[in-house]
This record gives sequence, C-alpha cells and structure tokens, in this order.
Amino acid sequence: MTTFDVVGIGNALVDVVVHVDDGFITEQQLAKGTMTLVDSQRADFLYGKLPPAVEVSGGSCGNTMAGFAMLGGAGAYIGRVKDDYFGRVFRHDLDAIGVQFSNEPATDGPPTGRCLVLVTADAHRTMCTDLGAASLLGVSDLNGEVIQSSKVTYMEGYLFDRPDAQRAFVRAAEFAHDSGHKVSITLSDPFCVDRHRDAFRDLVAKHVDILFANEDEILSLYQVERFDDALQALHNLGHVEIACLTRSEKGSVIVHDGEVHVIDAEPVAQVVDTTGAGDLYAAGFLYGFTQGFDLGLCGRIAAICSAEIISHNGARPEANLAELVAEKIGELPKQPED
Amino acid sequence: MTTFDVVGIGNALVDVVVHVDDGFITEQQLAKGTMTLVDSQRADFLYGKLPPAVEVSGGSCGNTMAGFAMLGGAGAYIGRVKDDYFGRVFRHDLDAIGVQFSNEPATDGPPTGRCLVLVTADAHRTMCTDLGAASLLGVSDLNGEVIQSSKVTYMEGYLFDRPDAQRAFVRAAEFAHDSGHKVSITLSDPFCVDRHRDAFRDLVAKHVDILFANEDEILSLYQVERFDDALQALHNLGHVEIACLTRSEKGSVIVHDGEVHVIDAEPVAQVVDTTGAGDLYAAGFLYGFTQGFDLGLCGRIAAICSAEIISHNGARPEANLAELVAEKIGELPKQPED
Repeated sequence: MTTFDVVGIGNALVDVVVHVDDGFITEQQLAKGTMTLVDSQRADFLYGKLPPAVEVSGGSCGNTMAGFAMLGGAGAYIGRVKDDYFGRVFRHDLDAIGVQFSNEPATDGPPTGRCLVLVTADAHRTMCTDLGAASLLGVSDLNGEVIQSSKVTYMEGYLFDRPDAQRAFVRAAEFAHDSGHKVSITLSDPFCVDRHRDAFRDLVAKHVDILFANEDEILSLYQVERFDDALQALHNLGHVEIACLTRSEKGSVIVHDGEVHVIDAEPVAQVVDTTGAGDLYAAGFLYGFTQGFDLGLCGRIAAICSAEIISHNGARPEANLAELVAEKIGELPKQPED
Repeated sequence: MTTFDVVGIGNALVDVVVHVDDGFITEQQLAKGTMTLVDSQRADFLYGKLPPAVEVSGGSCGNTMAGFAMLGGAGAYIGRVKDDYFGRVFRHDLDAIGVQFSNEPATDGPPTGRCLVLVTADAHRTMCTDLGAASLLGVSDLNGEVIQSSKVTYMEGYLFDRPDAQRAFVRAAEFAHDSGHKVSITLSDPFCVDRHRDAFRDLVAKHVDILFANEDEILSLYQVERFDDALQALHNLGHVEIACLTRSEKGSVIVHDGEVHVIDAEPVAQVVDTTGAGDLYAAGFLYGFTQGFDLGLCGRIAAICSAEIISHNGARPEANLAELVAEKIGELPKQPED
C-alpha cells in the first residue's frame, strides 16, 4: 500500500531567521550576503548573542517538501537531527506543515544542524550554517517502511559529501526500487558534483529515475561547456528516465525518452531572492508527477512554484501554492492523463 | 549528379536603399519605421523622387542565399523577375554573390518587385514594397533541372498567398523528392500562416522535410498558446523530419525524431536591427546540414549567423561569415559526422 507520494531525504537544518543591524555583522567579522559553514561551537556562540529569532525547518529538501505539502501532496521526510531543542523544532515544524518526519532523532553525536540567517535592514541575508547532525545521515537513519510506501524517494545532493550518506542513498534507492517505486535526486551544487563526479554519475546511471539539475550542475556532471552538449550526453547515455534541467530565466527543459518539453520561466514582476528556486521547482514537478499529470503540465506547475519563491525573501512560499497554480492553470486534471 | 547544395525559391525583390531626410517621409505621408505594401505606380512615383540609391538583391530568401554563399555553400535561386532594369540588377547581384539565378525573366506582366528602404538620420528604416512580378511566381517559373540537382529546395513562405505559388511549391517539392532530395520551407510570417493555415499544414505534412519557423509562426500553425504545446504538436503529428524553431533571445530548438537540441542565442553586444535574423539562421543551418554536420553544430552556425545580422542595420552580413564561424567554433569537420 502506498501511503506517501514523496519521501524526501535531506540535510535536516533549522533556519534561525533573525534581524540584526550592520554592527553585528561587522563585530562578528561575517562576510555580508554570503553563506559560511561554521562549527557547532561557533554557531552556539553566535546564537547566544542573537536577539529573539524565528526558527523554522529548512534545508533544500525541507523547502521542497514544504512546497509539496502546500500543493496537496502527501509527503514524508527523512533526515538526521539530534534529540535536542532544534531537533524538536525541526520535527514539529515539518509535522505542522503536514510532512511526516519519519526517523528517530539521534541520541549522541553533534547537535541538530542550524542555519543562522542574519537579515540586515537592507534585506541582505548573511548565513552561518552548522551542518551538525544532518551531514552524518547514514543507512541506520533510513526508515525502510516509509521509503517502500512512497511513490517517489527524493534525495538532496548536498548530502553526498560523506561516504555514509552515499551508502544511504544507494540503500534508499534499493528500498524504493524493490517496491516498484521511483528514485529521484537533485544534484544541489556544481561544486559538490565536481568533488564526487564519478560517484554521482554512477548513482545517476544505476539508481536514479528522475534527475533534477540546474545548468551549472548538469554541465559539471558531464564536463561539457554548453547546455545542448549536456542534453545530448543525457540522451546518448540514457542514464535516467526523466531529467528536469532548470535554466533560471531561460525556463527548463524536461527530457523523457524521445519526449522533450521546453518550458518557459513563469514571468516574475521582480526577482527578489533566488534562494529556493530549484527546491520549489522540484516540489511543483513532483506534485504533478505523483498526480499522474503529463510532463508538460508538471513543468508548468514547477515553473509557477519557482516563480513564487523568487518573488520574495526566503525559501518558503508566501502565497498559497495550490490556489496560485489553480489561478494560473485553471482546474487540474481529476484523473491521471495517461 | 548534384550540382547545388541549396536552391532557394523566394520573393525576388530588389532592395533600393537610400538615405532621406525626415521631410521626405512627412511629405510623402509615409509611416516612419514601418513596411507598407504599395503598387507599381506608387513605387515608380516615389523612386522618381529619390536621390541616388544603392540597389541590391533582397527578399527573405535572397538574404538566406547570400549568407549561404558567403559561408561557402553552392547555391541557386528561383524567383520571378521581369526583364527590366531591376530584374537585371537582381540577377546580376545574386550572380555576383555566387548564387546562380536559375529562371528566365518574365517578358510581360508587372515590373520586378522592389522594396524602397528609406533610411533617415536616426537610422530608422521606412519601407515601401511593391511585390510586382515576384508574387506571381508559378509552376512555369520553376527550373526543374536545378531543383533536381540541389540537395535541398528551400522555399519562402511569404510567397504562399497566391494559389499559383502554392501550386509551384508542391511541384517544386515533387521535383526534389523524385530525385531523392530534401524540401525545406520557412513559414515567414504568422499572418500569412493565419490566412492559409490549412494549406500550410497540408504542405508541411505532405511535402516538407525541414521546417523553419519562429515562435509566433509555429504557434499560429498549430493554434496553440505556448511554445511547448507547439513542440508537442510537432512531435505528436510527426509532420516533418526536422524542425528548426527560432525564439529570438531564447535561442532555438531543433527537433529531429527523438533528438532535440536546445541552442542558446549567440551573445550580441547590441541588437541594432533584427531584420534578417530568421533568414540568416536558415542560411547557417542549411550550410551545416548540406555539409553533413550534426544538428547541434548546424544550430550553432545558424545562431552565429543570426547574431551577426542583428548587430548592424540591413539584412546582408557585414562580417565574413565563414571566418566568423571559424573564429567562434574552430575548425569545422572535414567529413560528415555520421
């Protein structure tokens, strides 16, 4: 019995969003507008100095699953948190969104991962990320039952730096495929692809059905210079069943055997913050896909969700995505369009 | 024996390019910056008032064949001119470019078609076109031998307004196919497609191997609202072997069975005048195609030629196209890439 449409496996990070003045950024010698990885001590120290903050579940895959749930999809989440305050925040927050947090929190090791998002008056976001427990995800964190009962298992490429997580991805793919379900991955980051190109190619070729990648990531995966060369590599290698390639303002290209969709970007009055564009594209596509819609329609829903997220700060939708999609497209098909 | 790579069939128009002051435009009650169709009397009258002008062979297909010859392709041209001064200008000019003018001039009927291109100091171009003899092209103007000895017969959709020309297109396609060669058409104009949609669809489905269309034209042909819907119509109907769909700054999409190429537009420092963008795209593509290059490479050559033409006024290349392509791409394959 399929219980979930999608289970996401990601870097379980709590976003700690807080307004600070420029003085704080200077005092703490942070580079304004950038993201820096920090260790748990440094994160603790900075957190101790911060004024009251808003804490929400974050991370790339968390953003995707939040959007997915807002569209009406039945989602679950697997990620490593510790049994601590932020771990409880993360789990509670996902549950409140309607995404079932599906694994037990760790009782030892580093604390739950945090991303301190320091927003200054000019709307710049300076981020300090302590991956903490999140990056230590391994096979033992997988909930095989949830994976086996999800139509799609969606994995966040950011996790792919550690051998334990790489093994967990393969194991998760086996759980999914053994139950006749699909496996999806987002490449997440061209530098991460660069560090683990062979392992990524191997994963994509052997275990992935639905691939998400932006232009930089797919060029990095196949070490080519032009988008069309990456497209031909995908076509000729036949690595995946479906590839969704996102190209910012150029829209996206969806490839499935001989079927190719060229989807325009949804117009945006003003691009405010591109954080989460890829995450919400995946949310929209996976929603359409698990509803059985044709790929062109999946791409349009994805483009609409992506346009919403870049029209404001932050990587969580402000508009009601389901209503937004209905408004732009009209009534969605009741039954799968097979 | 194949003698030509491409024979173009088009509206044989002489461009009469002349600099005038704004007073002339006002005096003659012309709408600055637009193209107006005029009759031969009116064209004669205006021509009589003009200062010395530069006269060159023009027309959409003429532009394509000029670019094609500059790239090194062996080209021929079929179009209806009269045996008059402008008819001699047209024929001589094409011959000088290296494109063989291949049919006899008409001895009766309207004079050779002209496009008066009035350039004001602000670089605006006000055009008055007298189609004259050009639009009367019919089956008797076709040179069957030249068509039969050309790898590709390329036809300009602008001609498709009159039944005689429509019959000539079908006859030309028969000549080409009977000799085992390819037939190509450019849709030229969304309004012309709109006027003759059924006839165009019929032609495309039954007689065309290589289709060129810009976004407006392909949306008009299949009466859809989104580019991806046109792409799916092409795919599902299987009307043509190869479709080259141009999208201005969004680049182009080339479709051939299950093979799809998404080609980026070549960067242009400044877009000065988009006249001829589609004509030169076709020139570049057909050059690559008749050299046996793969479709991705054909698309890149096309994009480079198109970028050249929009970077200056007028629809004839100013740069040496063959050198430009060599500079951007490097050495082209010596042998077909099969």
